[in-house]
Order: sequence, then structure tokens, then C-alpha cells
Amino acid sequence: MIKKVAILGSTGSIGQQTLEVIDLFSEKFQVLALAGGRNIELLEEQTRKYRPGIVAVMDPERARELRLRLGDLPVKVLEGLEGLCEIARLSQVEIVVMAVSGVVGLLPTLEAVNAGKTVALANKETLVAGGSLVMRAAREKGAIILPVDSEHSAIFQCLLRDREGISSLLLTASGGPFRGYTKEQLRRVTPREALRHPNWEMGRKITIDSATLMNKGLEVIEARWLFDVDYDKIQVVVHPQSIIHSMVSYIDGSVIAYMSVPDMRIPIQYALSWPERWNNNWPKLDFFALREITFEEPNVKNFPCLDLAYQAGRIGGTMPAVLNAANEVAVKLFLQNKIGFLEIPRLIEETMGHHQVISNPDLGDILESDQEARQRVKALAK
Amino acid sequence: MIKKVAILGSTGSIGQQTLEVIDLFSEKFQVLALAGGRNIELLEEQTRKYRPGIVAVMDPERARELRLRLGDLPVKVLEGLEGLCEIARLSQVEIVVMAVSGVVGLLPTLEAVNAGKTVALANKETLVAGGSLVMRAAREKGAIILPVDSEHSAIFQCLLRDREGISSLLLTASGGPFRGYTKEQLRRVTPREALRHPNWEMGRKITIDSATLMNKGLEVIEARWLFDVDYDKIQVVVHPQSIIHSMVSYIDGSVIAYMSVPDMRIPIQYALSWPERWNNNWPKLDFFALREITFEEPNVKNFPCLDLAYQAGRIGGTMPAVLNAANEVAVKLFLQNKIGFLEIPRLIEETMGHHQVISNPDLGDILESDQEARQRVKALAK
Repeated sequence: MIKKVAILGSTGSIGQQTLEVIDLFSEKFQVLALAGGRNIELLEEQTRKYRPGIVAVMDPERARELRLRLGDLPVKVLEGLEGLCEIARLSQVEIVVMAVSGVVGLLPTLEAVNAGKTVALANKETLVAGGSLVMRAAREKGAIILPVDSEHSAIFQCLLRDREGISSLLLTASGGPFRGYTKEQLRRVTPREALRHPNWEMGRKITIDSATLMNKGLEVIEARWLFDVDYDKIQVVVHPQSIIHSMVSYIDGSVIAYMSVPDMRIPIQYALSWPERWNNNWPKLDFFALREITFEEPNVKNFPCLDLAYQAGRIGGTMPAVLNAANEVAVKLFLQNKIGFLEIPRLIEETMGHHQVISNPDLGDILESDQEARQRVKALAK
Repeated sequence: MIKKVAILGSTGSIGQQTLEVIDLFSEKFQVLALAGGRNIELLEEQTRKYRPGIVAVMDPERARELRLRLGDLPVKVLEGLEGLCEIARLSQVEIVVMAVSGVVGLLPTLEAVNAGKTVALANKETLVAGGSLVMRAAREKGAIILPVDSEHSAIFQCLLRDREGISSLLLTASGGPFRGYTKEQLRRVTPREALRHPNWEMGRKITIDSATLMNKGLEVIEARWLFDVDYDKIQVVVHPQSIIHSMVSYIDGSVIAYMSVPDMRIPIQYALSWPERWNNNWPKLDFFALREITFEEPNVKNFPCLDLAYQAGRIGGTMPAVLNAANEVAVKLFLQNKIGFLEIPRLIEETMGHHQVISNPDLGDILESDQEARQRVKALAK
């Protein structure tokens, strides 16, 4: 049976690795639609290779350029957020891989879920900002959300057929490139240093989030929604080797852990092959070469983003959307060398402090809070 | 719903811990029958506490003594292997906990399985000697076999999640008290030293088996029968901390691991609570206190019992029964200071070398091969 797939964010790190998995099992997939961000050269290349009927580009200018480049092909080029949404609800598509970065994934994800699609979700900002809306829609429409994040894929696999008697979800964290740094050292780290992740090859935004531990904070909120578990039952364990991707502990003292080599193609493949598993020829875990794995507590004093995320999650309502928006802008400012590394949590905390929380928000409330937070960070950073 | 239980081997280490679990959940269990070995003082005490209607003792002499001691209670005292078998097939019993040590467990297990009981199996010699018979009977009668061994309970729980696409079962081994010893050191170790296991409190036979790695070899054969997996797909990983109790690896590169503190009450409880999990107040895994876990290859040169078990398993037929019988006698001789530590594998290997394998053996063939092997070891050891 051929799976009909749309990939939103096909030119990013997860998008490209998704296509690698599809290359490996090309007889099992048909790529019906692609959407990319800025890299239209790559999007053109992908379009020529996979021959989707529809592609979309966020920026209208770039969409026009792509239309010219692809003039010889029978492909429709959509533009803007509406283009992404149109792809997400395309009637022939069965699986939507949501691999765009940032809260821009929220609307297309809602479209896909409302259309009853299976969503392979690699975008964590979507559930952080709009978890209650997305999960409610998924329940109502019977849409399946399969996590692509390695941690959530791990927990998903640990929970398969054994969801009773959970005592906690244990999200593992590498600790990022600055694990063990003092505050003084952190004050001076550069974007270039922050982009050097010890274990994973990832996009720029998520790599900075890993360095601040905000990535883990966003994952805590994502896990709360994906697995319907209270924040008190979600713990973070630093495990620098990134071999155990997460664990579930049970009331009887049992702990189930999911392990693999740190390679995003593995959770991507699982989201695409589920409920089956498929053979691949990638390197496998070798326990004798590995020799040891270690665990430690997260340093929440030097990396306050993790606690900010717990706070935002527990407050709920529009606060996680504000946390996320403030973080998106702060990370961008850091990457532009406009603020220091320790300004990231400070700006987020201040922005959260200014926010008037709306409980049980609708989509409009969330998008407005997001915009307000973005303005606030920019103002505070000046 | 009250579970009606019989415990064979109630005075041994696993038997006593089974009763501890039952004490903790006393409203959920009724103990209908107990069988003990030599320790009739303890068996009397257990009988006065749990008030089973039937108890059994292997040795007729001791059975008579117990009858006198329990003269004031309305309890029937059976004797011999037939007494154990009668308990195993008692019509009101739902769960038979098979916690006797050695191949003496084979006949009662077959009785329980043929009567369609759920068997919580802590006796590995039973499946080593008679795996094909027991598993065939279980299939025919629809009897459920729940492993109590921590490794097999771990694999059982990993496989609960996903039985498709298995690439191998990874049995973990502590390596025992002599991990890292040279042959010269091993030649001189005493029973007292061998009985000091680093992680587990266990009976004497299994503790010596842990020191020789035969315990892991028996577990490999047991796993082959419990999970219907080829020997090529069963690997042993030495993991000295005994936190990961075993793992399953899948064709896509995923590995699911089961962890807990090393406490046999946890797998015992799971076999009794299955398919539920029950809360308990025992110490839980603390990853921050744990800090690190390590892995290494088993040293099959210094600990040849593991390879002997693989060989016997691959040869099949009556050979695993011979391996097991030879090991039982050799361990007894070692504990009596009659042979050295390194004589254990030597005697087993020689005994296996003398054996004429019978393929597709019936129960008679297995019991005969067992007896023959016991005689052979005694003769060789003189």
C-alpha cells in the first residue's frame, strides 16, 4: 500500500531527512506536495525529483521566482501561510509531515488535523502554543498525531500497549554544548559556539534551544499534550550521550527506556512506518563500543529556560504561546548577535511577566498573544 | 477479584519474596497450596500464617514430621514429586508460582500447564530441559506462562509493546562476582566467595550459576523457548550494575530496555499483577543517584559455561537437559568443596561430549538423559 505524503518544511533538516527515508522506501511512498521556506533552489530540486503536484512557499516573492523556475513542469505553486494550509488539507494526502520551524506550523497542523489526516509532527512550537486546540480537534476528528521528535517518539514507543500505571515520563536531555558552563562563561558564548551541538545535526533554531535547555522545556509542554500527563509527572534527566531518548516509569518500579543511535532518520522513519517497523541499513547501537551512559540533574540555575517552560505550562492558557513567541524572537536576536546568551531567558521571563493570561483561549487569542509577545521582546531588547 | 495461588518452593528465596508481595496485596490473593523443600520449620510457619488447604514436602520423612507439627490444623500434607504435581493441578488454583530450584520443576510445571493454569515461572531449568514439551502443552491447553526471572520479565514487558520486526533479544548479565578475574584467579575461588553476588540476593544454586555465567546460558535457552526466537537472535551484554534487566532490539535501529532497581519482588509482583501494574512502596530507580551504567562483552574464554549453553541449545533434543543436569551436579560438588570452580565447565563439557542426542525427545527421554548425565558427572569427578 502506497502512503501519500505531504511534507511541510521539506527544505529544512527534518524535511530533508524525511525525503532520505522516503528514498530508502521509495516503493512505499508518493510525495503529493512539498512546502519550503527560503531555500527555493533546493525546493526546485526536490520538486524535479519527487514530482509533487503542488508546492508552496511562504514568501510570495520567492513563490513567484519558483513558478518561473518550474515553468516546464505541471506543478501548482502556492504561496503564504494559506498555501501551507491548502497543502495540509489536500484531499488525497494521508500523512502530513509537519517539519516547519516555529509557531507558523500551528495553522497548517490544525488544518491537517481537522481534515482527519495523520500528522507526523516534528514542530514542537505548534503544541506548545496551541496544544489544547490541536488535541481537541484530533480527538473530535479521529486524527492521529505521531511524534517525530526523538524524545516523544521514544515515549510513544514506550507507551505502546502499556498506558496503565504510569508514574512519570522521563524526558532525556543531552544538556547541550554548554553543559557544565558557569554563568560567567555563558555570558560570553557566541552563536557560533551555540550552534555546535555535541550529538545532533539540527536546524539553527532548535540547536540554540538545545543550548538554553528551552528545547527541553518546549518538549515538556509538548509531552503534556501528546500524552495527556500532568506537569508533575514529567521529569527531565540529563543524559549527555543521547542514547536513551526518553523513558516511562511505572508505579510498580518498572522503567521502560527507548534507545537508538542519535539519528533523526530513525524516529522519522517510525512515524512513517507506524504501526510497522522497517529494516534499514543505518548504523545500529553497539553496546560494547558504547561502554557507558551517564545521567545527571539539569542545572536549572544556569539554564533557567527549563523552569520558565514548566511555569508557562502550569499557568496554561495563552502563557505557553507567549513563552514560545518570546523565545523565537530572542533566539533570532541572539543569532543576529544583538543580545547575549543570558538575555534569552531574561527577555522571556520579562515578557511572561507582562502578559495577561487568557484561560481556555481560542485560536485568535493565541495568535494575538503570540504577536503581542513578539512586539514586547523587540521593545525590551532595544 | 481474588487470585487463587499455589506456590511451589515457598521456602526458597523466590517463594519467600512471593509471599512478601502477597502480604502487600493480601486482599487480592488467596494462598491455596504451598510446597517446600527441606526447611519444614519455615513451611510450618507459612502454613499457620496463610492457611492453605494443602501443603507438600519433597522428602517423605520430612513430610511425616510436618504432618505431626500441623496436627492441629485442617491441612493435608502431601509428599514427594507426586505431591508437588497434585498441587500444580489442583482444580481451584488459578496461578501456580513455580519457584523450586532445579529440573525437579519440570513435571509439576507440565502438570500445571496441562491443567491450563497460569504459571509464574521462576524455575529456568524446566524450560532448559523440557522447553519444547512445556511450550507445546501451553499452546495446546492455552496456558499462560509468565516469566519471573528478571531478564525474561524484562523482555516480556519490552515485547508487550511490539513483537514485530525484532532483530534480537539482548539479555543483560551482571558478570557475577568474578568478572575480570584471570583463569589463575578463578582456579582458586572458594564457594564462599562465589556466593557473594554483587547485586542480587538469591538461592545458592543460582548464585553459583551467576558466578560461572551458566545462569545466563540457561537464560538464553529459556528465552529461546519463552519468546520463540532463534539462538542467533539472542545476545548477552554484560552490564555490571544490573539496572537494565534486558532489552529488545528492532530492525529499524530501535532498542527497548526494561529497567528497575535489582529487586526480585518487582518481577514477581508483575507476574502476579499482570496484565495490571500495582503500586508499591519499594525503593525506585533514581537516575541522579545512579549516575552511570556500563556495558561490556562477556568473557567467554574465562567463563566457558555461556558458550556451552549456546552449544547445547543449538544442538537441541536432549542436549540442554544434559547440560542442565551436569551443571546441577557439578555445582553441588563445588559447593561441597569436592571440585574446583573451573571443574564445573570441564565436567559439563565432557558429559555433553559423551551424550548421544535424542531429537524430538519425549518426557521419558529427557528424564533418562538427565539421570545419565548426573551419573556421568559423578563418575568423572571421582
